[in-house]
Amino acid sequence: MRVGMLTGGGDCPGLNAVIRGAVRKGVSTYGHEFVGFRDGWRGPLDNDTITLDINAVRGILPRGGTILGSSRTNPFAIENGVERIKDNLAANGCDALIAIGGEDTLGVATKLADLGVNVVGVPKTIDNDLSGTDFTFGFDTAVNIAMEAIDRLHTTAESHHRVLVVEVMGRHAGWIALHAGLAGGANIILIPERPFDIDKVCAQVESRFATHYSPIIVVSEGAVPADGGSMSLVSGQKDAFGHVRLGGIGDRLASEIEQRTGQEARAVVLGHIQRGGTPTAFDRWLATRFGLHAIQAVHEGDFGKMVALRGTDIERVPLSEGTKELKVVRPELYEEAEVLFG
Amino acid sequence: MRVGMLTGGGDCPGLNAVIRGAVRKGVSTYGHEFVGFRDGWRGPLDNDTITLDINAVRGILPRGGTILGSSRTNPFAIENGVERIKDNLAANGCDALIAIGGEDTLGVATKLADLGVNVVGVPKTIDNDLSGTDFTFGFDTAVNIAMEAIDRLHTTAESHHRVLVVEVMGRHAGWIALHAGLAGGANIILIPERPFDIDKVCAQVESRFATHYSPIIVVSEGAVPADGGSMSLVSGQKDAFGHVRLGGIGDRLASEIEQRTGQEARAVVLGHIQRGGTPTAFDRWLATRFGLHAIQAVHEGDFGKMVALRGTDIERVPLSEGTKELKVVRPELYEEAEVLFG
Amino acid sequence: MRVGMLTGGGDCPGLNAVIRGAVRKGVSTYGHEFVGFRDGWRGPLDNDTITLDINAVRGILPRGGTILGSSRTNPFAIENGVERIKDNLAANGCDALIAIGGEDTLGVATKLADLGVNVVGVPKTIDNDLSGTDFTFGFDTAVNIAMEAIDRLHTTAESHHRVLVVEVMGRHAGWIALHAGLAGGANIILIPERPFDIDKVCAQVESRFATHYSPIIVVSEGAVPADGGSMSLVSGQKDAFGHVRLGGIGDRLASEIEQRTGQEARAVVLGHIQRGGTPTAFDRWLATRFGLHAIQAVHEGDFGKMVALRGTDIERVPLSEGTKELKVVRPELYEEAEVLFG
Amino acid sequence: MRVGMLTGGGDCPGLNAVIRGAVRKGVSTYGHEFVGFRDGWRGPLDNDTITLDINAVRGILPRGGTILGSSRTNPFAIENGVERIKDNLAANGCDALIAIGGEDTLGVATKLADLGVNVVGVPKTIDNDLSGTDFTFGFDTAVNIAMEAIDRLHTTAESHHRVLVVEVMGRHAGWIALHAGLAGGANIILIPERPFDIDKVCAQVESRFATHYSPIIVVSEGAVPADGGSMSLVSGQKDAFGHVRLGGIGDRLASEIEQRTGQEARAVVLGHIQRGGTPTAFDRWLATRFGLHAIQAVHEGDFGKMVALRGTDIERVPLSEGTKELKVVRPELYEEAEVLFG
Repeated sequence: MRVGMLTGGGDCPGLNAVIRGAVRKGVSTYGHEFVGFRDGWRGPLDNDTITLDINAVRGILPRGGTILGSSRTNPFAIENGVERIKDNLAANGCDALIAIGGEDTLGVATKLADLGVNVVGVPKTIDNDLSGTDFTFGFDTAVNIAMEAIDRLHTTAESHHRVLVVEVMGRHAGWIALHAGLAGGANIILIPERPFDIDKVCAQVESRFATHYSPIIVVSEGAVPADGGSMSLVSGQKDAFGHVRLGGIGDRLASEIEQRTGQEARAVVLGHIQRGGTPTAFDRWLATRFGLHAIQAVHEGDFGKMVALRGTDIERVPLSEGTKELKVVRPELYEEAEVLFG
Repeated sequence: MRVGMLTGGGDCPGLNAVIRGAVRKGVSTYGHEFVGFRDGWRGPLDNDTITLDINAVRGILPRGGTILGSSRTNPFAIENGVERIKDNLAANGCDALIAIGGEDTLGVATKLADLGVNVVGVPKTIDNDLSGTDFTFGFDTAVNIAMEAIDRLHTTAESHHRVLVVEVMGRHAGWIALHAGLAGGANIILIPERPFDIDKVCAQVESRFATHYSPIIVVSEGAVPADGGSMSLVSGQKDAFGHVRLGGIGDRLASEIEQRTGQEARAVVLGHIQRGGTPTAFDRWLATRFGLHAIQAVHEGDFGKMVALRGTDIERVPLSEGTKELKVVRPELYEEAEVLFG
Repeated sequence: MRVGMLTGGGDCPGLNAVIRGAVRKGVSTYGHEFVGFRDGWRGPLDNDTITLDINAVRGILPRGGTILGSSRTNPFAIENGVERIKDNLAANGCDALIAIGGEDTLGVATKLADLGVNVVGVPKTIDNDLSGTDFTFGFDTAVNIAMEAIDRLHTTAESHHRVLVVEVMGRHAGWIALHAGLAGGANIILIPERPFDIDKVCAQVESRFATHYSPIIVVSEGAVPADGGSMSLVSGQKDAFGHVRLGGIGDRLASEIEQRTGQEARAVVLGHIQRGGTPTAFDRWLATRFGLHAIQAVHEGDFGKMVALRGTDIERVPLSEGTKELKVVRPELYEEAEVLFG
Repeated sequence: MRVGMLTGGGDCPGLNAVIRGAVRKGVSTYGHEFVGFRDGWRGPLDNDTITLDINAVRGILPRGGTILGSSRTNPFAIENGVERIKDNLAANGCDALIAIGGEDTLGVATKLADLGVNVVGVPKTIDNDLSGTDFTFGFDTAVNIAMEAIDRLHTTAESHHRVLVVEVMGRHAGWIALHAGLAGGANIILIPERPFDIDKVCAQVESRFATHYSPIIVVSEGAVPADGGSMSLVSGQKDAFGHVRLGGIGDRLASEIEQRTGQEARAVVLGHIQRGGTPTAFDRWLATRFGLHAIQAVHEGDFGKMVALRGTDIERVPLSEGTKELKVVRPELYEEAEVLFG
């Protein structure tokens, strides 16, 4: 049996662990052969392949990124895209395909499965916002990186009596902000699920300074003010040379707080360092197991499914379940954390 | 309401996060007051207390160890132990007690609950071998430290064509070895649940060298040979000065492999560095939530229970459930990992 | 003898190690007493002091920031500033003052020394741009944090075929960029001492992609284009919500490269995380020794000096030497590194 | 010009950075070709070579170990060893050889240079005990790993009122113990240069407990008691299963302290994790520069020399200078640190 594999969307620590787990078990237990498709769906569209055997996966467990490369190519937006994929799978003798990716990649996989392609999915999102699984790999790594940054910023906040705003990933769901903020002892956490009240935020900042401590605010990149108009769109924050820094919500929030409270405020935008580098033990464990179970599903011919973590077990759920709705932070979880603010 | 709190047994990254979570929510949400008892059950036995308020828990979230101190004192092994505990709880006006600990501490808590003491338990074991909860805090930190050590040892193993044996914690259960070994890409993992065959281990070592790679073996401190007599009890390994190093299973295994295969073998015993230091994000999140939910159980008068992680939820289970049997590595989990050996 | 101590300017990992080293040796070897002045020169101006004894410095060695607080207050810009400082030193019975800080703080210390105040200086700059000393503490920590970020970004750059621009600290000197870029294997390093040619940078980017690898560019915050007019001032980079991000040199460079080469480019601005958190071993060693030697200088009455690292020795140099000129990256050091670009 | 390269002795973080630096500059600046010899002097003895070009050194900068492999083979202990080396260098067209290694490797290089081989040396010792250079690469990494372990152990020592003994590398020189102990805030540091008085150590332990704090002792593997007979040779420390652990100085010291003071004492032997894994920024910077300057020496025909760090400069010294005497910790440096004990 020959199995194709691809990785789509943004990179995530653990992608290589999935690939390695599937290949090692596929080769040694089932006698499978593998075809690596480059750069997400672009690979099977353009028949761009690489060798994917035991040697190719040696030493990649601790490495971030993906040896297969990635892209955001959508075959349904391309003329004859589906046919080209089917043809190239056939040309490579692939009886099955493992698609590792997020909402977009798994959405394509779901449609291809409906069109008769033998697909097994592996859910991937650094934001942890895919349904059907307790956690996705990469998330724990991102949370730890963000937490370590918050740990580092505490001393600067205290030493300079400054507000520090830390912008973390999370466009539609606040999981990284919630977990990293909780773990880092942030004083305020703002997430997309809860439009924030800038007046209340400023009141919390002032109350924190009143007790002689400096506040750290963790904000998801997708967090928004409750009343969009109440915050100025353009940041007035200046860099070392007097250039205006105009930015995302982190910069805008710091600027707004500084203007309203008179307290010095600075933003730190963690950006790409959250998604690169070596995965944590949790992510290597989860991703490796996802790979092992995905190839087992292939072996058993259980297509149209994706692997998922439930408690400590890896289970299979319909591919469509992962993407049918966004997994957002439930109000009670946020309120649980809110007790620790201030 | 006044609530006593104590931590018993070996220290674990996250203990302070539990304490902080309970105190902050207890004070701010319920108006509780707290009494910290020092050094596990020795505190309420000897009426040795410390102040435990908002100031006392400030800044402790990222710190390993426990601000309450710990011990292995067992009040049931001490004359009038139970009476002394009841008297001292009363003397301090404590209506309830939060006991944070492992098998021994929770065993005592269970018996005290049966004797009418208002106890809520928080499960703690670095070995992750308590039943009733998916994970315990501290375990993820230990696994990451062990994994980082394995990551480091890979290059030495390769550069010197040497067998490296890494001894990790786990007296009765192999969770740390399994997770760290899997995450670190170990070539062999030996756990207490599976007495190992030294002949088979040596064959795997030789097979690994045959492919020009050096093996890394991760072994739980409690792992044992299938036939105890087949391995010499005394290690012949010598240190830099020719002194014989006689040791635990790691040293003995390295010595045995060297004698049998003729390949140079060295042991690294990670020991206490696995249980000290700042907790990972997962452990801070889990421990903080344990603290929040433990104090909520106290507030609701739901005694004789311990908090537990199930999937992503914190639930309450009877105190006795955590200690009624050891949670060991199931055979199918070990076999899943075994595919990756070699 | 009573000795005052203060920390001025931006915080730096190692400040607490200096304070601890000086206090422990001062108390135990010389029988000194200490007075901590809060928030740089504001402390002796306003007579704002804190207790500074053995207990106050316990446990601070691994902590970033400064227990004394900091500010950028300049007493020479304040009416009767010098008199107030002299009066408050006298009021506290201080026979000597240890001033820990950078160009501004040491500049004030130099003038005060000329006016008869018994000052010993300890050089501090995260940018490593003070003369008279081989290295300053905090620099090694900043370089390691930046290097780890670059390590993490390599995999993302490769997986997405993207240019990644990493903006690090360094307003006037490129030491952090040079060391972190060299250690992180950056493909291009841009520093303030060498105005860069944007055409050449883009050519290097294209040449790197031609070999199928993605470039990582490390740029000091103070780097400037050789011909300021050749780069557009305003970045066109947009965040997740389509808001224009207008930024410092990192953002502007990424935007310019993307426009000129057509290659996707992203900037990561490390900002404050470079200066917070626990110091590296080198910085703890250097800072502790600075503290030990500063109090020895006080004890010997050798005022008007600052401590400095020369090779592996701590020496004393005139206070004025540290600030008389900026220590910039010499051309031959940059050219040495340039060999590794591409 | 063709240049041979080899790495001998124990592995050290930074070896790959030296190799990469030399190859990249040699190829791009001078047009050199390289021949990699495997496993130290065994390579040129057995004519065991590997390809060493730009591709071979790609991505190795952050990796520990050595891509060339290592051994402790001594050609002067082998019949016709020198002739075989000369013949194989000639057979490979090597006009020069870069030998990267410690006392043994450089000792051989020195003799070969005297016999007319064109050798340039690069000093390597994790123990930092080679003369002629301020620091060797790998040392900073080892010190940071040991410091982080000490940081972690502090909380366990406190929580359990226990003595913790940390055994670090250093057979003949106590540099790692001194630097890591100083940086980690150890309470006692014992080094080979200063035979220790066990009575005094126990008195310090008791004095530390008297102030309600638990002591951490850092000891070099080569430290010895002042009167060898005063300490029992065999440790009585038992592992979880009651097996006697008989060990090096760390285990023996812990056992002795426990017996003499009645305080619980545990040893942690860091061992190989100190020499594996990714190098720190300092070590990557130093090792890379050593590589760049070694190949420059080759290019200039300046043979019989080794590169060395002096302050912030890389200089060349006679090969014999590195090995003529061991660089040990000077008494005044130890006494400087001693002030911080207790």
